[in-house]
Amino acid sequence: MTTEPYADTRATSAEDAAAAARRVIAGLVRAGDLGGADMASIADRLNEIADELDATAPTVEARLRDMWGNGRPNHDPVAGGENPIAPPLSYAGKDDGSIEAQVTLDLPYQGPPSCVHGGVSALLLDHTLGVANGWAGLHGMTAELTLRYHRTTPLFEPLTITGRHVSRDGRKIRTIGAIHAGGEACVTAEGLFVTPRTA
Amino acid sequence: MTTEPYADTRATSAEDAAAAARRVIAGLVRAGDLGGADMASIADRLNEIADELDATAPTVEARLRDMWGNGRPNHDPVAGGENPIAPPLSYAGKDDGSIEAQVTLDLPYQGPPSCVHGGVSALLLDHTLGVANGWAGLHGMTAELTLRYHRTTPLFEPLTITGRHVSRDGRKIRTIGAIHAGGEACVTAEGLFVTPRTA
Repeated sequence: MTTEPYADTRATSAEDAAAAARRVIAGLVRAGDLGGADMASIADRLNEIADELDATAPTVEARLRDMWGNGRPNHDPVAGGENPIAPPLSYAGKDDGSIEAQVTLDLPYQGPPSCVHGGVSALLLDHTLGVANGWAGLHGMTAELTLRYHRTTPLFEPLTITGRHVSRDGRKIRTIGAIHAGGEACVTAEGLFVTPRTA
Repeated sequence: MTTEPYADTRATSAEDAAAAARRVIAGLVRAGDLGGADMASIADRLNEIADELDATAPTVEARLRDMWGNGRPNHDPVAGGENPIAPPLSYAGKDDGSIEAQVTLDLPYQGPPSCVHGGVSALLLDHTLGVANGWAGLHGMTAELTLRYHRTTPLFEPLTITGRHVSRDGRKIRTIGAIHAGGEACVTAEGLFVTPRTA
């Protein structure tokens, strides 16, 4: 007897459930008070599911060990397949040392009308810079992050999100990133990361 | 016949459904592959709800008009009661011209183990600075946002998020903010906002 197939099946289902929850989030924000669905019934059914999850939840301590112990964290709010908040981004490493993800965002991520929330762009870029550090074999905690907003970032259109480690000076790591739409830079980011003394 | 009571009831239900979805998000991230619930069944039930929302959704154009036309937008990913991604923050204006919100964040907002994701802090602060501008009677689009991370921001503990408009020079607005935990500043933010020419 091995626990492998069991673990695999559940991993897939947890991601499937998160993907379905992501659809619910988008559906709810798209509907607001205008949709034709019975929102009170939907609230009841969602609360039932939440009750079920709560009643059968592992302890937070056990879940934290599980999240961080398997070497493949998949729960963060940007690229985490198990996190319904994450769009989620899926990164590809490139030959020039940069990483890149494509994503199209919907109403849950809205700031100005039909545009991505500036803070969501900051969230995506902070994470992307961290992943770019990892792609360069580095690890650091964000010390400073500067975002420049050059034009609005559109919802409903493909965005390209890039990150690239640029320099290292002792424990200080500098990394840049950008969000492009239609070939134009909408937001650029510069991050200063510091490698923990224990790393 | 008036549409008022009907509109009111539905508004409450949309917020209730978002609140329930927020519980589902937290429950899913807390469970991962460790929970005792049948995740495949939960995925099916969430997809059913999403199908129902999709089948009865207003057009995006109608929803955008509704979101932005009623003078009380409630859909953003930080303070929006109708958005399951939002914690949601609830701001109080203070006599010194600042605004403040209290929030305790759970696993969906995690970056480092048991800590708030640096990008989530950026998201919350970007929004808070915008709200602080509004509290000061100003409106601007984020042009530049700088975040400084002084120490890790804990999950599971009350955080105080503040914002305050500090100066205005023509169309340029400068605003600051911070996230405190246990009286210590974890993240500070400085934002430069530019008032649109049409405003």
